[in-house]
Amino acid sequence: MNDLEIRRAAAVDVPDIVAMLADDPLGAERESPDDLAPYLAAFARVDGDPHQHLVVAVRGGRVIGTLHLTVIPGLSRRGATRALIEAVRVHADARGSGLGTHLIEWAVAESRRLGCALVQLTSDVTRTDAHRFYERLGFTASHVGFKMAL
Amino acid sequence: MNDLEIRRAAAVDVPDIVAMLADDPLGAERESPDDLAPYLAAFARVDGDPHQHLVVAVRGGRVIGTLHLTVIPGLSRRGATRALIEAVRVHADARGSGLGTHLIEWAVAESRRLGCALVQLTSDVTRTDAHRFYERLGFTASHVGFKMAL
Repeated sequence: MNDLEIRRAAAVDVPDIVAMLADDPLGAERESPDDLAPYLAAFARVDGDPHQHLVVAVRGGRVIGTLHLTVIPGLSRRGATRALIEAVRVHADARGSGLGTHLIEWAVAESRRLGCALVQLTSDVTRTDAHRFYERLGFTASHVGFKMAL
Repeated sequence: MNDLEIRRAAAVDVPDIVAMLADDPLGAERESPDDLAPYLAAFARVDGDPHQHLVVAVRGGRVIGTLHLTVIPGLSRRGATRALIEAVRVHADARGSGLGTHLIEWAVAESRRLGCALVQLTSDVTRTDAHRFYERLGFTASHVGFKMAL
């Protein structure tokens, strides 16, 4: 991990990010890496919102991971600001290298730096390896995550 | 529900919102309705962020419900913007009146209006009645929700 850098994503990173989103059992069904237009439009929305922190992990000039952190103020829990982690991906070539741990530890540290009192994320019920991973990192599987497509 | 209004929350609503957050088996342990200062500071953060939609349900001049909707852009799912629902509460006097359904239906409609392709929320594993409620409203319990206090 010596030369690993986690930095803010730029528009030029979008193809690499999308390739990682699509190279996944669930992502394969719902991404369209051959048509980048909707992703570039989405990147502009993310990049223009100061509460969105989309990052890439880079080693040797190659993008090998990504994570999206959102900072959400709220009244609950004595006015706690929370951080939401979404879209964590590690490139197939870099799996098993500890990069996932590195990305989540970065997100937790960044959340703390940004004044968050809570970090949360959801993981598809089928990703049982991911569940063990998050529990090892100190997360508690305290909630049921509900989704509705519109 | 004839005279029910769901409107943007104002600072003057904060005591009523906090009272509802605290009047709850889980909220009772983590809220401090006797000290409003952290909630008013949090309200200012929420109110100043155009992607936060904190609302109250009002009937006959009384605040009887609340819900917090956050709009989150992202690259996943072909650049889908998602909405996150947090802090849904119905006043004890108004429970069983269909207000919870009304609030969630409002949130789903508002999410659609704001261009979201997905609505998501998490519910504590102990809130089994809430889980059935969300499934009846069309949500799928597809995820495990992880949290870590900082």
